[in-house]
Amino acid sequence: MRVLGVDPGLTRCGIGVVEGSAGRPLRMRAVGVVRTTADADIAERLVLVERGMEEWLDRYEPEVVAVERVFSQHNVSTVMGTAQASAVAMLCAARRGLPVALHTPSEVKAAVTGTGRADKAQVGAMVTRLLRLDAPPRPADAADALALAICHIWRAPAMNRLQSAHAAARPRTARTPGTPKGRTP
Amino acid sequence: MRVLGVDPGLTRCGIGVVEGSAGRPLRMRAVGVVRTTADADIAERLVLVERGMEEWLDRYEPEVVAVERVFSQHNVSTVMGTAQASAVAMLCAARRGLPVALHTPSEVKAAVTGTGRADKAQVGAMVTRLLRLDAPPRPADAADALALAICHIWRAPAMNRLQSAHAAARPRTARTPGTPKGRTP
Repeated sequence: MRVLGVDPGLTRCGIGVVEGSAGRPLRMRAVGVVRTTADADIAERLVLVERGMEEWLDRYEPEVVAVERVFSQHNVSTVMGTAQASAVAMLCAARRGLPVALHTPSEVKAAVTGTGRADKAQVGAMVTRLLRLDAPPRPADAADALALAICHIWRAPAMNRLQSAHAAARPRTARTPGTPKGRTP
Repeated sequence: MRVLGVDPGLTRCGIGVVEGSAGRPLRMRAVGVVRTTADADIAERLVLVERGMEEWLDRYEPEVVAVERVFSQHNVSTVMGTAQASAVAMLCAARRGLPVALHTPSEVKAAVTGTGRADKAQVGAMVTRLLRLDAPPRPADAADALALAICHIWRAPAMNRLQSAHAAARPRTARTPGTPKGRTP
């Protein structure tokens, strides 16, 4: 399974691509950061995040995109930008029909370090070890994106079993289309 | 000036198109809502919001898109969806080179009712009067989108003067491109 992990952010959006499956050694394909500067309009910054995401998706053709689930309890000053960058990442993936998985920060930490309360350094150290890198990826957003991808590879089998069980138990309901109902006076 | 106003939301994204200029009678071109159902994945819902926005932009060719500025102090349970829907609206506009203006809920209320603390009913009543409609647009999200467009038309002259003054005072700085720096091991 090839997973593209996204640690969303407007200033730095971490992206990491990991290949592997649960119970086997993992391999890093690529890691990096899409940056936008704070002196640009937010709308312009979202366009740059979209462009960056598209390049990564084109180049690495992941089968799944794993994005950090954003909570509103986080740091109030940055949470809006994080939510908006995550929306763009999810949109880019879903638009090409790729499944999008969300994992909370504590799920990611627990997956790679064994504890949901690990700090950045611990996550970076474990990512370095699990992917057999020479040094922790910098900045931390890049390491977090790899941790998300790893978390997804390890959690996916259990999540798939759960989803299958839900799908079997729940009747399929019709979905309202998102098309606008314009009214012209 | 033709303005497309967006009251962002995942369940109901209000959209309204108003034409006019400050000091002259306004005219509603269209109003409606892009809906997505809560049983779809968030990524799928964002794709539906994008599709809806694109249809509105294609059909009404606004010169400006005005979006409600989302604050994290709002209702915690819905603020993430609102922030993410607003990101998609801003992205769709900026991607086609349209200017995006953000107005806070109290700026919008103050513009159309004279007080930043007006309730939904007051806003709906004033939108009905200002656009000479037979009845307040339903749901409230649709009325709010029209109020946003009206607010923008009335505030734009002052905002443009301010922007020109800022641009004249501030030296132009280089912007970091949003392209990823991938590293392949």
